[in-house]
Amino acid sequence: MTRALELAARGPAHGPNPRVGCVLLGPPPGATLPDGAAPGSIDPHPRPVLAEGWHRGAGTPHAEAAALADARARGVDVAGATAVVTLEPCAHTGRTGPCADALVAAGVAEVVLGVDDPNPVATGGAHRLRAAGVRVVRGLRAAEGEELLRVWLAAVRRGTPYVTLKTATTLDGYVAAADGTSRWITGPAAREHAHRVRAEVDAIVVGTGTLLADDPELTARVRGHGPSHVAAHEAASAVRLAEHQPLRVVVGLRGVPPAARVRGEGGELVHVLTRDVGEVLERLAEREVRHVLVEGGPTLATAFLAAGAVDELHAYVAPVLLGSGRRAVDGFGVATIADAHRFRTVEVRRVGDDALVVSRKSTEGRVG
Amino acid sequence: MTRALELAARGPAHGPNPRVGCVLLGPPPGATLPDGAAPGSIDPHPRPVLAEGWHRGAGTPHAEAAALADARARGVDVAGATAVVTLEPCAHTGRTGPCADALVAAGVAEVVLGVDDPNPVATGGAHRLRAAGVRVVRGLRAAEGEELLRVWLAAVRRGTPYVTLKTATTLDGYVAAADGTSRWITGPAAREHAHRVRAEVDAIVVGTGTLLADDPELTARVRGHGPSHVAAHEAASAVRLAEHQPLRVVVGLRGVPPAARVRGEGGELVHVLTRDVGEVLERLAEREVRHVLVEGGPTLATAFLAAGAVDELHAYVAPVLLGSGRRAVDGFGVATIADAHRFRTVEVRRVGDDALVVSRKSTEGRVG
Repeated sequence: MTRALELAARGPAHGPNPRVGCVLLGPPPGATLPDGAAPGSIDPHPRPVLAEGWHRGAGTPHAEAAALADARARGVDVAGATAVVTLEPCAHTGRTGPCADALVAAGVAEVVLGVDDPNPVATGGAHRLRAAGVRVVRGLRAAEGEELLRVWLAAVRRGTPYVTLKTATTLDGYVAAADGTSRWITGPAAREHAHRVRAEVDAIVVGTGTLLADDPELTARVRGHGPSHVAAHEAASAVRLAEHQPLRVVVGLRGVPPAARVRGEGGELVHVLTRDVGEVLERLAEREVRHVLVEGGPTLATAFLAAGAVDELHAYVAPVLLGSGRRAVDGFGVATIADAHRFRTVEVRRVGDDALVVSRKSTEGRVG
Repeated sequence: MTRALELAARGPAHGPNPRVGCVLLGPPPGATLPDGAAPGSIDPHPRPVLAEGWHRGAGTPHAEAAALADARARGVDVAGATAVVTLEPCAHTGRTGPCADALVAAGVAEVVLGVDDPNPVATGGAHRLRAAGVRVVRGLRAAEGEELLRVWLAAVRRGTPYVTLKTATTLDGYVAAADGTSRWITGPAAREHAHRVRAEVDAIVVGTGTLLADDPELTARVRGHGPSHVAAHEAASAVRLAEHQPLRVVVGLRGVPPAARVRGEGGELVHVLTRDVGEVLERLAEREVRHVLVEGGPTLATAFLAAGAVDELHAYVAPVLLGSGRRAVDGFGVATIADAHRFRTVEVRRVGDDALVVSRKSTEGRVG
């Protein structure tokens, strides 16, 4: 399972599908597989790895299918093998066929799985395997599997995307001075970090106010060389568009100007004509968006907080005091300290000259 | 000098005097001291340590005197020895006699010093030593010596105390909700850390507004056992008053109520009847206060920031959003981002569930 989890982590953090790894194990060396009896899941003898696979993103084979393909490529027979997989094999036909059936067809004798599949359209794989006479062991290192799939599981269980709110403020909570000037409060290291986060989410959301005021590109840009092409205006600084570009989602009733930079090279542009947070999330869920990054401005951030829709908070804080200006979030109806939106700190780190505080909703993301 | 710096660091961080360490070295083993010639400061042979000393705080012997006393206690003759001392030996009689004279009287042949003494009343030690025929080498590992004495040097060079402003806020910069409730925004680990800082400063300053609203004790309390006595109301929780209690300074024109907790067990109470930050600092400088911790409230913190009098910022930030309420600092006349009070981050760390961002005035505290 350690290896399966390692393989799973190679998959992309973004996308509609979970990161899954699968290892196919043969019988212990020297042992002959007992007739009809499945090999025990607790086994003192290390078993040979026959094949392995992981899911590389929507439209590509699932981890189990990838491992079976790997076995075929190696010319290995997997009849009687044990499949160790980080997530319950699916039982439905989506972009690919049901993995449970593929494992049965290949003659796999036992499946050891980590996390049960919460996806209502895909669940039932374990049942299907058992019905076909395959031994199934569930829950092996499920806590680690859940942590790896934390965002995806939260989104799939709830049916709406996991929401990360990003703020970049002074120590006293401002995003701009009284006259609206704001470049730059946080430093280049914080901005670079934020771009790496963008490259791992499915969608970036801003309000029309921010769109009209700042004319952002809403792309994920990364430093250094890679297979991506150079963004024309930044060619000189060796900053390139990341390979994965999240959806660019604009929320609000005002229009997106024809010359807006958000219409340039980058992810697909989606304009959700509403001010209702629930409606935004439903529209994005329909597009199989699992992870949304809310980048502002204050009106939109406040709306998401007021709706209790923020799962995770990425607060970049600069060692700057303004004393007045435009606040990152403003007035979501908290009158007394007991009603404050309290998060649970996950990480505090220095990013250049700024601090990054990552925290999560106290009741979200608990695993194990 | 490494050993001398180690010894210096044993001294208290608070108090009017600097932390200084002194090591007395004999001639290299086997070598006879050349007649009249001072031993070279660059010496391939390790020299025997004859004695050592450090300053334990105002009213106790200076490091050089402590080292000479250590030599006497050991029955060692220090004639012809080299004194390695982290700060230039003083040339004045304060609570103790001039160290330069004591070194000359003891027959020390050479003094290697780290940092020049900036104290206008104490400087001149190197000159006095040279006049008496002692060889003087200056500036050995001065950068490390300056770092150890950073706060003290800044205060003595400028003639007013070094000011650390402490804030404890939500991520959006509030110290209390709209109805005034605030207990607790930051957690117990942050409060405990703040008490350790209190035990290292000379004075804690609050405004009369905070005094009347919160009725704080303004003591330094620490966990666990020690030579200090138990604060009566906290006996049960094994929290005790720290050995060193800073001055308790109340700033403002309103009176301190007779029953105020700030009048209870703890540091001396000083009421400065002014609203002028410069006057507060002058009054404290007269009392040889080197390090002031400004704890609030918002009016006082804002006054110190507006006066440009904050050298260091300790911002405890809780993973909480309020959206409205009472702000830690408010409106010190910054209209545009270029005029923001920008600090330089020294440290970002997690303290319990909170973040602590330590930053310093960009032009202050630069050493080396």
